[in-house]
Amino acid sequence: MNKRDVTGRNDDSLAAYLLGLGQQGKSAASVLSIASTENKNNALRLMAEALGDAESIILEANECDIETASELDDALIDRLKLSPQRVSDMVSGVLSVAALPDPVGFVTDLVSRPSGIDVGRMRVPLGVVGVVYESRPNVTADVAALCIKSGNAVILKGGSEAFASNKVIAEVTSSAIVAAGLPKGAVQLVESKDRSAVNAMLNLSEHIDVVIPRGGKGLVELVSTEAKMPVIKHLDGICHVFLDDSADEKKAYDIALNAKTQRFGTCNTMETLLATPVAAKNIFPRLIESYSNLAVELRGCDRTRKFSPKILEASSADWGTEYLGPILSIKIVDDLDTAISHIAEYGSRHTDAIVTEDRKNARDFIRKVDSSSVVVNASTRFADGFEYGLGAEIGISTDKFHARGPVGLEGLTSQKWVVIGDGDVRR
Amino acid sequence: MNKRDVTGRNDDSLAAYLLGLGQQGKSAASVLSIASTENKNNALRLMAEALGDAESIILEANECDIETASELDDALIDRLKLSPQRVSDMVSGVLSVAALPDPVGFVTDLVSRPSGIDVGRMRVPLGVVGVVYESRPNVTADVAALCIKSGNAVILKGGSEAFASNKVIAEVTSSAIVAAGLPKGAVQLVESKDRSAVNAMLNLSEHIDVVIPRGGKGLVELVSTEAKMPVIKHLDGICHVFLDDSADEKKAYDIALNAKTQRFGTCNTMETLLATPVAAKNIFPRLIESYSNLAVELRGCDRTRKFSPKILEASSADWGTEYLGPILSIKIVDDLDTAISHIAEYGSRHTDAIVTEDRKNARDFIRKVDSSSVVVNASTRFADGFEYGLGAEIGISTDKFHARGPVGLEGLTSQKWVVIGDGDVRR
Repeated sequence: MNKRDVTGRNDDSLAAYLLGLGQQGKSAASVLSIASTENKNNALRLMAEALGDAESIILEANECDIETASELDDALIDRLKLSPQRVSDMVSGVLSVAALPDPVGFVTDLVSRPSGIDVGRMRVPLGVVGVVYESRPNVTADVAALCIKSGNAVILKGGSEAFASNKVIAEVTSSAIVAAGLPKGAVQLVESKDRSAVNAMLNLSEHIDVVIPRGGKGLVELVSTEAKMPVIKHLDGICHVFLDDSADEKKAYDIALNAKTQRFGTCNTMETLLATPVAAKNIFPRLIESYSNLAVELRGCDRTRKFSPKILEASSADWGTEYLGPILSIKIVDDLDTAISHIAEYGSRHTDAIVTEDRKNARDFIRKVDSSSVVVNASTRFADGFEYGLGAEIGISTDKFHARGPVGLEGLTSQKWVVIGDGDVRR
Repeated sequence: MNKRDVTGRNDDSLAAYLLGLGQQGKSAASVLSIASTENKNNALRLMAEALGDAESIILEANECDIETASELDDALIDRLKLSPQRVSDMVSGVLSVAALPDPVGFVTDLVSRPSGIDVGRMRVPLGVVGVVYESRPNVTADVAALCIKSGNAVILKGGSEAFASNKVIAEVTSSAIVAAGLPKGAVQLVESKDRSAVNAMLNLSEHIDVVIPRGGKGLVELVSTEAKMPVIKHLDGICHVFLDDSADEKKAYDIALNAKTQRFGTCNTMETLLATPVAAKNIFPRLIESYSNLAVELRGCDRTRKFSPKILEASSADWGTEYLGPILSIKIVDDLDTAISHIAEYGSRHTDAIVTEDRKNARDFIRKVDSSSVVVNASTRFADGFEYGLGAEIGISTDKFHARGPVGLEGLTSQKWVVIGDGDVRR
């Protein structure tokens, strides 16, 4: 792969280039932040239309990327590849963002204070959002749409493997935005294949208000370590389902199966199944058979292995592993507290579920499990911006600060205080 | 001043000591996070009682600090000094936090989704809060109370000049908390006068979830630069009041006078007065006389200086200076947009006010001025947690990320997602 900047820039000129993008982003952000809902929605509709019209040139550019990337593995190629269907999904994604309520500009929680002033809060954009991502070119359109709708400017740094696709999508988007009367700097793509461009971007704390890495663990760790600005990030998704004594047999079976096998490679897929001895006795025989039928490799603790000779021995490393594939670790735990301790020790605070008919256990699980999503009697696979009603998500945060769990439009905003008086002064 | 650790620790043992505090904090946080409101309020009431009972030993310890600190300037001594009145204020501060609603543990925004699941959000504590502060020993009690109420453990690093006072207050607090059945590690004071202790603390990103610096600019900058965890910080308070053509004479006079002179040293004090030529003509003559009577030094632009020979010439540095004292810079600007541009260029995004009878101008000012508090027809001095009804504040944030403006209990929490199903799986 080409490790040099496509334009032949060295590190200094890369830094200057990124600074330029940052400055244009800041200046666009001040216009976008006060743009009317109508104006932003109009930009999104023009963008959707332009992307649809540009289908053939987008697919052509994508074809170039695929050819250059032919040495990459199949999974990566699959993420990189666009089809007419995927372009059409991109278009409807943008339109669905246009249909979401505008999160910014209205005052909430207005209260009259004894001093005489009225105090409320107004949602405002964060400013300039940086997004560093890999592979999927549709992210370019998704993220641009979410940022425009929330009144933020965005600086996009896609993976070098998707360079041509991203460039066309960003250009089409940018023209549509300008046609809607919004500034060109609202959506900018870093036109460099060089990794140093990421480092230069992460230094721009004066110009980029938050950075969001989307991609593999290596990328997320690089961005978290190097960024001089706040980061909304997602590290591991080591999700658990715990079946307690009272768990309903059918619910437990359905949920444990769905949480593991509905999709293997997603961050909200269950990686470890926990069960009390009673629940295991009721539910494991049928469940283990179904997992085997779906070719899921099972790795269990000693007590679990008694249920089937097919279950391999789990090592201690298994409890802290995000398989992202057809492997499941299983542990029998004595009770709710042991399950909660296991989740605290090995989990990644992403999404954890309990299956129970016991109201107290459900309550305790909700309060005591410190994860971005805690789930009662449903599959972990629901932890997702669309499923939660956010309309779309820019990422899932496993941090607690600012935004937690699926991050939609609201996570791209902050609140300012609005004070209204009538000549009031402080005594 | 003693630059060595009081216990004679070197950097390595300091790091180990801080790590120990961090571990105890984490373990206490997991208990505190699920403590009942009653339990936490009981701890706060016992704490208030114990602080009242300990008045004489607190004042004695404070006397020691004052003696050691005799070489410090008067303003610092004043901030350091406790009196029976200040101890009693500390006690009532703790009781007022007990009276605030518990921010954590209840589910809000519960909605039923088309898939069949119910999704809501529950406020949860951040975990372990680190606070690095200077001088005022009452901060020890204030901050401890806010953290306990919000279910967070706290690690306090006070200034070396207040070491004895902070130590007694922390010990009294800690005993009260233990008496209420909460863990000792909930409130911990870093017992070191060494600045390296701050650096060791700022490295504990695994154990401290957020750090809040409270003190001078040097301290805030040190903490922001060195902290490996998120920071809630307050840098400058360069606040503006803008008088437009339509400004009511009396309101403008009252607000401009109050914003500058009600207190000089606070971050929400006005540092620059802006006015249109019309407003200046109506309001400046009387206002300038009143400022002069209160010995406020005025530094103006050329147009302003025509109003009085007493007005000194403002240099360009004046527009970006937080005086924190009886000095005011004044500029005549052509219109609302020029005022907004000036605030964007020189302000610190803290608190800015407009005095106007024009509804469109008020609206534009609110939307376009990107400050943590935007104020219409009231003094900037209202920007404060108590005035806003937060009950108390742990600080004021000039950042946009996570918390903005006065930060109360809510700013010390995050939200997790709660999903309730009945055997639901994802299709």
